[in-house]
Parts: sequence; C-alpha cells; structure tokens
Amino acid sequence: MLEVLKQAVLEANLDLPKHRLVTFTWGNVSGIDREQGLVVIKPSGVPYEALRAEDLVVLNLAGDVVEGRLKPSSDTPTHLALYRAFPTLGGIVHTHSPWATSWAQAGRSIPALGTTHADYFYGEVPCTRAMTEAEIQGAYELETGNVIIETFQDRDPAMVPGVLVYCHAPFCWGTDPHNAVHNAVVVEEVAKIAYRTFALNPDIQPMDQTLLDRHFLRKHGANAYYGQK
Amino acid sequence: MLEVLKQAVLEANLDLPKHRLVTFTWGNVSGIDREQGLVVIKPSGVPYEALRAEDLVVLNLAGDVVEGRLKPSSDTPTHLALYRAFPTLGGIVHTHSPWATSWAQAGRSIPALGTTHADYFYGEVPCTRAMTEAEIQGAYELETGNVIIETFQDRDPAMVPGVLVYCHAPFCWGTDPHNAVHNAVVVEEVAKIAYRTFALNPDIQPMDQTLLDRHFLRKHGANAYYGQK
Amino acid sequence: MLEVLKQAVLEANLDLPKHRLVTFTWGNVSGIDREQGLVVIKPSGVPYEALRAEDLVVLNLAGDVVEGRLKPSSDTPTHLALYRAFPTLGGIVHTHSPWATSWAQAGRSIPALGTTHADYFYGEVPCTRAMTEAEIQGAYELETGNVIIETFQDRDPAMVPGVLVYCHAPFCWGTDPHNAVHNAVVVEEVAKIAYRTFALNPDIQPMDQTLLDRHFLRKHGANAYYGQK
Amino acid sequence: MLEVLKQAVLEANLDLPKHRLVTFTWGNVSGIDREQGLVVIKPSGVPYEALRAEDLVVLNLAGDVVEGRLKPSSDTPTHLALYRAFPTLGGIVHTHSPWATSWAQAGRSIPALGTTHADYFYGEVPCTRAMTEAEIQGAYELETGNVIIETFQDRDPAMVPGVLVYCHAPFCWGTDPHNAVHNAVVVEEVAKIAYRTFALNPDIQPMDQTLLDRHFLRKHGANAYYGQK
Repeated sequence: MLEVLKQAVLEANLDLPKHRLVTFTWGNVSGIDREQGLVVIKPSGVPYEALRAEDLVVLNLAGDVVEGRLKPSSDTPTHLALYRAFPTLGGIVHTHSPWATSWAQAGRSIPALGTTHADYFYGEVPCTRAMTEAEIQGAYELETGNVIIETFQDRDPAMVPGVLVYCHAPFCWGTDPHNAVHNAVVVEEVAKIAYRTFALNPDIQPMDQTLLDRHFLRKHGANAYYGQK
Repeated sequence: MLEVLKQAVLEANLDLPKHRLVTFTWGNVSGIDREQGLVVIKPSGVPYEALRAEDLVVLNLAGDVVEGRLKPSSDTPTHLALYRAFPTLGGIVHTHSPWATSWAQAGRSIPALGTTHADYFYGEVPCTRAMTEAEIQGAYELETGNVIIETFQDRDPAMVPGVLVYCHAPFCWGTDPHNAVHNAVVVEEVAKIAYRTFALNPDIQPMDQTLLDRHFLRKHGANAYYGQK
Repeated sequence: MLEVLKQAVLEANLDLPKHRLVTFTWGNVSGIDREQGLVVIKPSGVPYEALRAEDLVVLNLAGDVVEGRLKPSSDTPTHLALYRAFPTLGGIVHTHSPWATSWAQAGRSIPALGTTHADYFYGEVPCTRAMTEAEIQGAYELETGNVIIETFQDRDPAMVPGVLVYCHAPFCWGTDPHNAVHNAVVVEEVAKIAYRTFALNPDIQPMDQTLLDRHFLRKHGANAYYGQK
Repeated sequence: MLEVLKQAVLEANLDLPKHRLVTFTWGNVSGIDREQGLVVIKPSGVPYEALRAEDLVVLNLAGDVVEGRLKPSSDTPTHLALYRAFPTLGGIVHTHSPWATSWAQAGRSIPALGTTHADYFYGEVPCTRAMTEAEIQGAYELETGNVIIETFQDRDPAMVPGVLVYCHAPFCWGTDPHNAVHNAVVVEEVAKIAYRTFALNPDIQPMDQTLLDRHFLRKHGANAYYGQK
C-alpha cells in the first residue's frame, strides 16, 4: 500500500540528517496521496539511522491510522491540518534547523533580502503570532496547524513554501516530500544569510520588488526560464 | 567487574568527538552502578582514539580507586560530589563544547527561549556563581561540585539535566552515560540557538510558561506522549 | 571539441560543492578558449553529482550555442559580457556562497583588512550599485554583467578578481576555471574573516597601503617571491 | 639527515588541514634540531596533499639552505628569528586560521576569559603592534619575527605559546612541531569562544587570576596533576 509514496517519505526523512537539518529525532517528513486521501508520516521518536519504510505510519486526513504498528509523529495533527487547508501541498517537513529556529525564537519573519531568497520565496518567510494559553493547553498540535493557516490568510502557500512557528521552529512544504525537504534547506540557508546581513547592515530593508519578481518568476510560473524545462 | 557499565561509559566517551563536543581530551564521561556504589570514569588526558574499556577507572563514592591502572580524570571529585548529592543521576559528562562554554565564560544562564529547549530543560540552564579564592585554592574540583549543588538548591537535577560552571564550561547528566551525552548535545544546541536569538532580538524574554510546560510534559512524566512508549 | 577546456570546466564545477561554495545548483563555472573565441559553461539547473563533460554547453562570445544538447546556465549572458569586456579572464565562477552573499545583501564592499585579503585582492572586493528597474526588467543577466563592468571602470580585474553583485551574490574570475574557483574560495574566506573583524572592532579601518602592497606584490608581478617559481 | 625531525615536520604540516586550520597553502610548520642547530621547514606554496618528506627544506639558523631542492616557506625568516630568540622552542606553526585571524585583523589580544584558555596560556594571547613602513618595506619577514620578539619582552614564550601578528594572523609554537600544532588548535578554539563571549557580554573582564593560576598550574610545572605523568 502506497509503496512509492512510502519510499519517497523514507528517503526525504533520511535526507534531513544528510542536510544537517536535524539533531537526533528533531524532525519529520510526511507525504500525501491526494487521490486516496492518505498521508504517510514518520513514527514518533524513531532515530533516522533505524528508520525503515515499514515503520512509517499511514493515516487518513481525519487522523485515523490506516496502517502501521508504531505511533505517528506527535506533530501529525499539524501536518494533517495543513494538508486539509492547502490542497497544493504534496509533502510537509518539520525540523528544528538551528538558523531558522533562531528566527522563530526571536519572533521575527525572515524578510526577502536577496536573490537567493527570491528564487524560492515570493516575499518574507513569515513568523506566526504567539499561540494563546487556550491553544497551547488544548489540541496543541492541531492549533499549531491552525495558527499557520491563519498566517497564510493572505498568502499562497505554493509561493511561500514555509513558515516559522513562533517560539518553536520551521514547517516547510512542497509539491512532494523531496521538494519539501529542498525548501527546508533553502529556509535554513536564507535564515543564515539574512542573520549575517542584518549584522553587517542593521538598517537593511527588504529587497526591491522588481528584483524579487524577476528572480521568483525566472524559476516559477509560465515564463520560467531556469533549468532544462 | 562492571563490564556492561564500562562498555556504556566507553561508548559515551567515544560519542563526544562524534558529536563534535570535544577538542583533544577536553571532556570526560562517567557512569554509576547505584547498587554497588561504584563509578566508572575516563582516565585523565588519554586521547579518545586510544581509549579502551580496560583503561577506564573504577572508584567508590568516597573516591578510592577500586580498579584500573591509570589515574582517573582530574574532574573526578566533581563527578563524585554530584553522584553523592543527586541520587537520580546515572551518568555525568563534562565538555568544553564551544557554544555552551561561551555562555559559561559570559557568566550567563541560558534562558528557555523555545520548544527545543523546553523539550529537555524545565527552565533555564543555570550558570553557577563565581567560585571564591578559597574554593579555587582548596579542593578545587570538589568545590566545583559543591557550587553546582548549591545552584540546584531549588532545582530538580532530573528536570534540569545540566549546568554551566562560571568561567569554565558545562557539566551535564542523565539517567545513564548515554543519556548524559544526549543532554550535552542538547545544551550545545540550545546554547547556539539562544546566542543567535539574542543577536536577532536583544530584548527577548524567556518563553511563555504554558508553552514550556506543554513541551516538557509532552516528553516527560506520567502524561508524556512523545515517542513509542 | 575543446576537450581539455571542457574537462577543466567540469572539474572546476565539481570543486564548488567540494569547497562548500554551493547549495544544490546555486553556482556555475565557465572557461574560455581565447583563440577560438568559445566559452564552455555549465548547463542550467543540472545537479553537480550528475554533471558530465558532455553536458557542458559551448557558445561563442555573441551567445550562439555551438555545441551541446542542454540549455546553458541562465547566468550565461553575465559570463559572456565579462569575457568580452575583460580580455585577461580565462574562467568565471558564480556562487551564492553564504558569507560573500551576506556582504552582497548588505550592500557593502569587503575592505582589505589583513594580509589574507592582500595576498589575492589589491584593494576591496567591491559591491556593485543597485540595478535600475529598467535593467532588471530588461536583459537582466546581461545588465548584471554591465553593472559589474561599470564597477571596474577604475579597477584592473586581474588585480581584483571578484565582485559582489548588490542584493545578489559574488562573481569571481581568474586566469582559468580552476583559478577562478580558487579566488571564489578566497572571497568566501575573507568575507567570513572580515565579518568577524568588524564584530570585534566596529571602527576598523582598511589596512595600511604599504602592507597591502607588500603582500600583494609578494605573490604577483615581476618581483613575486612566494611559491616555487 | 634529520629523518625523524623531517617526519615530525611532515606530519605536523599534514595535521593543519586535518584540524581545518588552513585553506590551500596558507600555513607552514617547522621544527628544530637544537644540537645541530638545523631547522626543517615546509617549502613555499606546495599543496599539503602533494607534500612529501623529501620536499622539506633544511636550513641553519643563519638562513643558509643546507638541504632541499625547493625554496623554503616565504615565512622562514620569521621562524628563524623566533628560534634564535626563544631557546625553548622546538616547533613553530603559522596559519591564517579564521577565528584567530579575525582577532589579529581587529588588532585585539585575546584575553584569558575561562579555563579552556587558562589550561594552555598563562594570560592573554597578545597581538603585536602595527609594523612601521620601514619594517614592512625592509626585511619584512625578519621584522615580523622581531615585532613578535618585542611583544614577548615581558612574557615567557613557554607559558604563552602563541601570538597574533597585527593585521596578519597567528604564529604558535611548542616543544616540538606536533605540540606547536596542538597550540595552534587551542588558539583557534579560544579565539572562537572569546569572540562569542564578548557578543554575549560586551563588558566581560579577564578571568580571576587565582582561577587562571589553578588551571595553568594543574597542567604545567612541578605540581601538575593532569594526565598520566
């Protein structure tokens, strides 16, 4: 069942330590089969070096486990909320990658400061608002999803494929699990470069909109001309 | 004698360079057999690449060497003081890991600024007070243990599994040697992220107590729901 | 055709990830055969681990593809403009190496602050002016080349083998593709050291001209005495 | 001739890239045979990966080449000046290791801020004064040695085994080439930790003298009790 997706989710999870995005088990990747409405996700707390395809957990979008002996990631309700709200998402990744997490802890969105950022994100990587006491004490992981969705009220998640959860860490996504991890690497990289940019020039302003348009549209949309397509 | 514990202490010591927590021999791990009241610790100044199980030194809690041809780590009196004072400790690790050491040299505790921290530490990673001339000139390594114990007068070492010794470096601990090293990795990671958080937002305050509770208790205690247990 | 040059361009491209100058496909190296007036460049968006000599694209200086099944790097017009304007260039490299990119995003030239810099760059690594709306919306990659050329009106590109494109990233060059990558490593290294120098001493001034002369001329020109020549 | 020393100098040179102290050929190690008054040093500009024992150059303390087909390091006159002035030196290493070089470029000595530093350096790692025009334009490398010697007028090089040359980079030394490289690693590490300590606490003062004494003397001198001796 879902063998191809499971393999993709497994590989995407294993790419997290390879790209140095995770320490221990601080991260997870999921993928979705939109036709069947089923999500494959990493089990909770299993070390990457021991992870096998058969350890992955399959759930429907309501959160019922359909296959798997292990408990799914404790962040599963966040993943499911995002899949339900954002139909263009094919994969989601959560990490505590250190540069992005520093911005999340500082409560700051990462502004678009250069073309590295603009090649992937059409505007800032937003930071969510602080969650309320009720949200934290209630269905916390579901509410984490909800506060992300609220942050994207006026944003297209396909054009801004990631977010910083306030006081927590990044969630990123993409067209499939592999692409989601790719965007998680990008967020970590732009978080690092933006940190240093502010240190070198504390008054720096977001980049020129024309340049942002040029770079984003060079890689995305009907007129893209980057790569071999 | 204590072969299983020796093997655990050996592996935990070898994990220090693997996790990039030590330069040269700047670190040591010990473990305790509570039933027998015996501690196994790294010998002093032996390079990790040459370390074997038979090099480890066995002492009782009074500090008498019970087995081993080599001198125990010069930090042994600190380890023993902590084992005597904190009965829940199964392993202790000392390193000069650079991020945590920077906070120790700055004389600053690492406040809980986000969920990465809250998943492991129930509140700040405290920094001890400066030691007095008498303490430094006296039984220095024992007094290092004493100043740590003083710092935990109102703290539970099982909920705050590490400390920064002022002007020196971190000591961490856990339920066994492996878990102690795990917590030493966490301290280094949160030290790094907190450093950058302050650079991005110098006025940042400790995180919301409700969020700290939620994350710590998600992983610890009777209602924990992280992982496969 | 141009087999030796292709091999050199291939190896220089593969050196980019080896020197940690690129993430994913964020970089490209080209080389020129001045006698034939032909440029060999990396294809657009091809991962380094999959790159082979036969994937490289050959163009003349007017930008016509002379050989190759793949689309050339989207930055090709920038490379060609530089080869046309600067006859001493034998190789060009573009990366988003993170330290240099931070300076580019901050809009700051990297001043010569020490002998590491002076061994390779006769003065600052300049940052270009911001490009105009017209330049960005027009032949953007060509205009990127033009703004670099404008920045070198009063500079000798053989003595200052690299530049920061404002809000973008570095372009470096050299006598051949290998030497261009060498200079890209130098730019990243001096960008890192200069960043930290300013943090340690915000009022630091450019280094003494006599010391700059001494180090640059120790390695370059008729009286060079570094190395085995 | 001097085969054992040559092997030691070769290995010490090869340890530089292993410890990430050098980029390209930006470093060199020498060793001395005090009985014969002969120095073995790396040749100029030879990559580490190609370096063999027979490439090393042997000189007397006056600077005459006694053996070797290659030109010695351009920094040879600095090494020789230090060997002549400081009879306790058995090995010398020069690198442009990035953290220490940042302090050198900032013109700041690295104060002793914690026990990591105190375990090896009895006080600050000093930064030399700026060299004069005459010194730079004259016998520059010899004068570099002289300005280091001047900096140690009131210091014992055996207790402070390294220096930052203003606007340049560190020189370190030790009882033999291996020990010199060991101290170069220490300087880079304390440079990094001190940088971050100042960022966390800009008003930090040098550490307590009693603690400095305790740690330095724990490892050095008649009453040392660290290690297996």
